Amino acid sequence: MVTVGIIGAGRIGKVHVESISTKVANARIKMLADPFIREETAQWAKKMGVAHVTKDYREVLADPEIDAVLICSSTDTHSPISVEAIRAGKHVFCEKPIDHDVAKIREVMSALEEHPVKYQVGFNRRFDHNFAAVRAAVDAGKIGEIHIVKVTSRDPEPPGMEYVKVSGGMFLDMTIHDFDMVRYLTGCNATEVYVEAAVLVDPAIGEAGDVDTAVITLKMENGAIAVIDNSRKAAYGYDQRVEVFGSRGMAAVSNDTASSAVISSAEGVTGEKPLHFFLERYMDAYAKELQYFVDAIENGTDTPLGVVDGLEPVRMGLAAKKSLAEHRPVKIAEIG
Amino acid sequence: MVTVGIIGAGRIGKVHVESISTKVANARIKMLADPFIREETAQWAKKMGVAHVTKDYREVLADPEIDAVLICSSTDTHSPISVEAIRAGKHVFCEKPIDHDVAKIREVMSALEEHPVKYQVGFNRRFDHNFAAVRAAVDAGKIGEIHIVKVTSRDPEPPGMEYVKVSGGMFLDMTIHDFDMVRYLTGCNATEVYVEAAVLVDPAIGEAGDVDTAVITLKMENGAIAVIDNSRKAAYGYDQRVEVFGSRGMAAVSNDTASSAVISSAEGVTGEKPLHFFLERYMDAYAKELQYFVDAIENGTDTPLGVVDGLEPVRMGLAAKKSLAEHRPVKIAEIG
Amino acid sequence: MVTVGIIGAGRIGKVHVESISTKVANARIKMLADPFIREETAQWAKKMGVAHVTKDYREVLADPEIDAVLICSSTDTHSPISVEAIRAGKHVFCEKPIDHDVAKIREVMSALEEHPVKYQVGFNRRFDHNFAAVRAAVDAGKIGEIHIVKVTSRDPEPPGMEYVKVSGGMFLDMTIHDFDMVRYLTGCNATEVYVEAAVLVDPAIGEAGDVDTAVITLKMENGAIAVIDNSRKAAYGYDQRVEVFGSRGMAAVSNDTASSAVISSAEGVTGEKPLHFFLERYMDAYAKELQYFVDAIENGTDTPLGVVDGLEPVRMGLAAKKSLAEHRPVKIAEIG
Amino acid sequence: MVTVGIIGAGRIGKVHVESISTKVANARIKMLADPFIREETAQWAKKMGVAHVTKDYREVLADPEIDAVLICSSTDTHSPISVEAIRAGKHVFCEKPIDHDVAKIREVMSALEEHPVKYQVGFNRRFDHNFAAVRAAVDAGKIGEIHIVKVTSRDPEPPGMEYVKVSGGMFLDMTIHDFDMVRYLTGCNATEVYVEAAVLVDPAIGEAGDVDTAVITLKMENGAIAVIDNSRKAAYGYDQRVEVFGSRGMAAVSNDTASSAVISSAEGVTGEKPLHFFLERYMDAYAKELQYFVDAIENGTDTPLGVVDGLEPVRMGLAAKKSLAEHRPVKIAEIG
Repeated sequence: MVTVGIIGAGRIGKVHVESISTKVANARIKMLADPFIREETAQWAKKMGVAHVTKDYREVLADPEIDAVLICSSTDTHSPISVEAIRAGKHVFCEKPIDHDVAKIREVMSALEEHPVKYQVGFNRRFDHNFAAVRAAVDAGKIGEIHIVKVTSRDPEPPGMEYVKVSGGMFLDMTIHDFDMVRYLTGCNATEVYVEAAVLVDPAIGEAGDVDTAVITLKMENGAIAVIDNSRKAAYGYDQRVEVFGSRGMAAVSNDTASSAVISSAEGVTGEKPLHFFLERYMDAYAKELQYFVDAIENGTDTPLGVVDGLEPVRMGLAAKKSLAEHRPVKIAEIG
Repeated sequence: MVTVGIIGAGRIGKVHVESISTKVANARIKMLADPFIREETAQWAKKMGVAHVTKDYREVLADPEIDAVLICSSTDTHSPISVEAIRAGKHVFCEKPIDHDVAKIREVMSALEEHPVKYQVGFNRRFDHNFAAVRAAVDAGKIGEIHIVKVTSRDPEPPGMEYVKVSGGMFLDMTIHDFDMVRYLTGCNATEVYVEAAVLVDPAIGEAGDVDTAVITLKMENGAIAVIDNSRKAAYGYDQRVEVFGSRGMAAVSNDTASSAVISSAEGVTGEKPLHFFLERYMDAYAKELQYFVDAIENGTDTPLGVVDGLEPVRMGLAAKKSLAEHRPVKIAEIG
Repeated sequence: MVTVGIIGAGRIGKVHVESISTKVANARIKMLADPFIREETAQWAKKMGVAHVTKDYREVLADPEIDAVLICSSTDTHSPISVEAIRAGKHVFCEKPIDHDVAKIREVMSALEEHPVKYQVGFNRRFDHNFAAVRAAVDAGKIGEIHIVKVTSRDPEPPGMEYVKVSGGMFLDMTIHDFDMVRYLTGCNATEVYVEAAVLVDPAIGEAGDVDTAVITLKMENGAIAVIDNSRKAAYGYDQRVEVFGSRGMAAVSNDTASSAVISSAEGVTGEKPLHFFLERYMDAYAKELQYFVDAIENGTDTPLGVVDGLEPVRMGLAAKKSLAEHRPVKIAEIG
Repeated sequence: MVTVGIIGAGRIGKVHVESISTKVANARIKMLADPFIREETAQWAKKMGVAHVTKDYREVLADPEIDAVLICSSTDTHSPISVEAIRAGKHVFCEKPIDHDVAKIREVMSALEEHPVKYQVGFNRRFDHNFAAVRAAVDAGKIGEIHIVKVTSRDPEPPGMEYVKVSGGMFLDMTIHDFDMVRYLTGCNATEVYVEAAVLVDPAIGEAGDVDTAVITLKMENGAIAVIDNSRKAAYGYDQRVEVFGSRGMAAVSNDTASSAVISSAEGVTGEKPLHFFLERYMDAYAKELQYFVDAIENGTDTPLGVVDGLEPVRMGLAAKKSLAEHRPVKIAEIG
């Protein structure tokens, strides 16, 4: 039984409370820390079996019973709290991104070299049943040598403008998941990125200095070409598809729906829209990534994604920003 | 080059004129006969390359250059003209059903014994790409021993009431195609039929003594169970599906559509309705059945369906009528 | 918070332990009773939060803290324990079938008249996301007046011969779920049943006096015709589909799969097989039915299916057996 | 009735002979010209109703009865014969590409200004049922404002190396169809192109100075971003899909197959591979483009694609080559 403390009681923090309480049998949550925690949330947490609620995350780090912490606080605190937690000898599960600044991530890496605890980054999509099935097909050799990878990733609606302004831009906030997906599916790093992007969804996003629509092309170490298409708003909901094409064939997945019901009528043959957004689509994946993390601690094995898996997508995102700014292909090596 | 005469210039007669003119390279139409042929139709036929138009089908039978006749006249004339044509030494392609009366079909069989010309019945659906693919899977052993056959056959709209009254009833008019399909897919005859039927589409059909909705269960010689479901009106169009289930698996086909376009929007994910009705759905099958007929003549081989394939579905239809009337399972052997 | 006792620690009893422990927030299990409970199971139960394990179900009924019992013991004990529990003032969730004998079910009904506790029967498929979506389409009027209902229900493999012998026959063991499904989808009772059945999967099943393949036609009170096709063995796995066809259109569902991954290769375009069997396919439905049961207790509302919903499918099953034995359509009114 | 001469009796010339003979009712072929025509082809042409066969295309241009010519000769002759034919007052249907050299295409444009005959370029895919349905959805406003266009275009096998060497490179030979598709679907021109490409299928293609795998990003005049992915070899056959995504939704099409048959077995659920290559997939589109051309002549209306539709994809292809060579985004305006 692994004893866990959770730092941050926002949306994703609550998802993790629920996952551990109901789906991860070999873990329990001893403490939940959030400086702004609401009474309502605290009560809910207790009902979910959380023993103690605090405003100070340092309490979590100081508790000798706590084996591991989940860092779900605001993005700017991910890397400093990671370092603190590592130094306190806690295993760390850190939400993505570790930081927008490569130097800060390297500090986490240094801390890990000194204190080799388990470290996992929250790229939950790797644990989705569909994407895992594509990866399994790749691993089984069914696709052969990979030639082209396509990732479609479109949100049902843009985030609020306050969030857009602090998000680090679409590439570091949204595409970062797709950068990880490309690495996951190909099993290698990107060497170069080229971005074509535009503001087509909402002019306010453009005014905030960001884009909302993009096609991003990547050259991969293994010679494959990857392409990601992003939109901040798909009228039909959360569009999350991938396709891997290679010398022996193709693996592709379609969106998940609430049911397979299809209505045939005078108007046409109509199925359901994709599950609305990430909480609906990836709920199982959120639980599964924690199960892997907890199992890695219990069994003394590697976590499925380490700190380098947190670093590379940030480099790709920074290279994408540079590509857009300078209107040219940018090598990943140009970044940090 | 096979020289053909066509008797009957109604809807299906015209389909055959067009098929032979444009798609059957080794046949030409010398004569088209219809007592009520309209000037407009005669002109159209000439443009399609028909050499001669007549009101008297006997002209067709008398022409020594004509190798084969297609009988597309009204149902009550199918069997007498078949006999005449056979006796005149013509190969015969006869639209379904040969007759509603088994004795009349047996007369055609007798004529064929005396004059062994080629004889083919117009069960066009055997030549449809989808159903042929299911049959090919069965033949290739992919389904194993057949256990259950399901045929869904629903029209987009009921025929006019005048037609309903002379049609011989839904089982001999519409289900007859499905009876043939079951024989085609299983490669054997039915031994027993049970009907559950109702008038749910239009009370006028009931007043005319017919039904418009039915589920028909069949016991097959090879032990399989077949079930057909029929409706005279599907709001979404012509529904033509089959499924063959056996010891090794299942083969199933879905409907054909005009395109594979799917629109995803706030309203759902919508594809096209099935092709509207038999002329849209089976146009290629109509041409293909004639190609097989013409090739059988040219090559001196068997036609893909002979007179017995015209007889059995009629017996099944008559047994179905008896089952409905007497509310019990009826053996095919009880019929003629 | 509803306090629950579970009687029976077999496969389905364990499923309910897990569902309540992890997915039903407003219920807790105080006791688990099974005369043959293994030490291993008892330990597992404690880890799942079950406070007490016993060999005597009467302990459950005697405990005044327990509000409700789930009866998951062997079929022959369902009705007597139901009656005992009702008389003890416990709300009852009873696995299907309540009994194979209509008279025994009527005893449960009598007990309920005297002690009107909540009573729910375990027809879990009503809580499946796919079937519920079809029912929702029916309720929303999208199908119009129902004309034809089709249920395909095929197991991946037949049960062991020991089980076959005590199962009451395929219609009471397996088809009973489909009988319930037809009632659920149409919202009305059947009036007549006709069975065509055979032994095509395993001769041993025939030697045990049962069948393994069937097509069952039903006449419904609302005029619709329903047809169920069953097989004890589908090579490709658990096949669970329904289709409702009516005056305005059709609603249909396909099977669930572990992922939507499709591999295109030189061999074809291949998707996954259906989820293997009921534990994989209906795990969520098992939790949902209990949530409804617990909520009905908490809120003092009706359970989603009452004792009559347990009775009718048994009558349909007995009528089906009679139809097979006497080779004729049988009215449900002929049964009890 | 439009009288046609066909110049070139290679593969595509024969397709057009067959289309006009069997599917275009209001046209007839008076002459077929090819300097290397084989006796076998000449005989076949006569059987298809071609009145006269010649080795000298000038005979076609000189025949006053001939209204229109189809130019199906080798690519290097497309533009000079176009000019000659236009000057001879013939309407012209010219296979793609008109030329690899923009200056040569401009000569054709000049000739057309002096002699305003009908001129149509053979981008057959615009007449495919699937792509036309997507375009219809766009025109009907179902997609709203277009944001992203995706075209997948993969051949089942690379052409022979002799052909590769004279093809002008993959972008002018293969992608040119996709460039046209992007223009067709968006209804506007591209302004910039960026290419990521590689040799992953066959090193010999690289040795010949060409690529066989590419992802091509395009900026469109209307603000949309388009992306094409190409491969010279898909193990599962000819992959021809498009997707248009916009403010109101998405329209997408899948590949055509010979049948909708799906086999479910212990191995999985397997449908057919896409139709093998362009002759199978686009046979109807080839006939339809000619029907439009002939109708434009008969009715004095515009052809569905004029000479500018022949020019723009060549400019896009040349820009793509430049992008690949110079490893940077290239404006279409940089080309001719």
